[in-house]
Amino acid sequence: MAHLDLEKPLLERNDRLAAENKKLTDDAGVFMVDLMASPGAGKTSTILATIEALRESYRIAVIEGDIASDVDSQTIKSKGITAVQINTGGACHLESDMIARALGVLDVEALDLIIIENVGNLVCPTDFYLGEDAKVMILSVPEGDDKPLKYPGIFQISDAIILNKVDTTPVFDFDREAFLSSVQGLNPTAPVFEIAATTGQGVESWIDWLTARVDKKKKPLR
Amino acid sequence: MAHLDLEKPLLERNDRLAAENKKLTDDAGVFMVDLMASPGAGKTSTILATIEALRESYRIAVIEGDIASDVDSQTIKSKGITAVQINTGGACHLESDMIARALGVLDVEALDLIIIENVGNLVCPTDFYLGEDAKVMILSVPEGDDKPLKYPGIFQISDAIILNKVDTTPVFDFDREAFLSSVQGLNPTAPVFEIAATTGQGVESWIDWLTARVDKKKKPLR
Repeated sequence: MAHLDLEKPLLERNDRLAAENKKLTDDAGVFMVDLMASPGAGKTSTILATIEALRESYRIAVIEGDIASDVDSQTIKSKGITAVQINTGGACHLESDMIARALGVLDVEALDLIIIENVGNLVCPTDFYLGEDAKVMILSVPEGDDKPLKYPGIFQISDAIILNKVDTTPVFDFDREAFLSSVQGLNPTAPVFEIAATTGQGVESWIDWLTARVDKKKKPLR
Repeated sequence: MAHLDLEKPLLERNDRLAAENKKLTDDAGVFMVDLMASPGAGKTSTILATIEALRESYRIAVIEGDIASDVDSQTIKSKGITAVQINTGGACHLESDMIARALGVLDVEALDLIIIENVGNLVCPTDFYLGEDAKVMILSVPEGDDKPLKYPGIFQISDAIILNKVDTTPVFDFDREAFLSSVQGLNPTAPVFEIAATTGQGVESWIDWLTARVDKKKKPLR
């Protein structure tokens, strides 16, 4: 369709700014992860569980992307963690210029980990590189085991996949084997972490995966 | 941002084709409803419950929009109902030219009700008029009561709102009063139907609302 061509220069501009974001965080030794999911899959709960597990060991900040409102950044701030709210004003994903502005507000040198909570969407965030070190997606059990078939792109580009709300499996007709097999077909290398963010179930393996990457990038203190 | 201006002529083209879709269905006396929701909120289950309730009284067809796959249209067809699959190939919403092509495949004169299942997304479908008579959105309880605050646009433009999976309320921390109050603030005139599509709970009021509109548009048989 015509607008795909129109979008090309915009994507190029996005990638150029994303590369600047990457350089900024590389120089500071900060690991930046872009967390993507549908509305209500548990992005904020997963971030809260991650903060809880890592706040003693690392200096963390959160960049919150939403169409509107600041409820999520208020939640994060109430835990004593720095949070920058971005309102996209209608756009269904974050772009690298928004992240550049958020990084400008943060004291990046004084951080080890930046968690970006993208806009709730299984489609739009897929196409936009923000300068992050990893893209991680969350699917929740109530959304159904067929989602990899319907939204293959986001499963393909994710470096790790979190299956959240596994404690609700008894309530929903979720075929775990079918889900894992679909994911394996789309993305054989991404680990799948099965968690319940609100109870802490299974969160350790996700934390181990993330910790290894934050440590690898962290600059030794001088 | 720059691409909003670039998109303007595309939206105008979309609206022009949508008006043609509207005229086609008006002339045939067919009611067309655009069903929007997040991935996994229960669009297909709601359509199945609607078909079950109305199949004896009306001639129904379904237009299925997905990024990829045809699992939903196969499900609908397995119930003996005509279904046309549209794969958007990455786009996060349906556009009116896709609906025009689907209407070209259907025998519109021989129908009373066309249900469009939009791509699973709370953002993108909001901006695209397809020529439908009504836009209806579904939110499901597991997604959380704060979704009207985060995705106000879709709540504002919907003619009716379905709250699905109300049977799972005991499992989730969903504040019904807060949800209804947020919806009321955004869209005071849209009815909210609280249903569990898979058990049939509460489906009657949704069916009554839809039936009244299908009957109003239906041409008397000659």
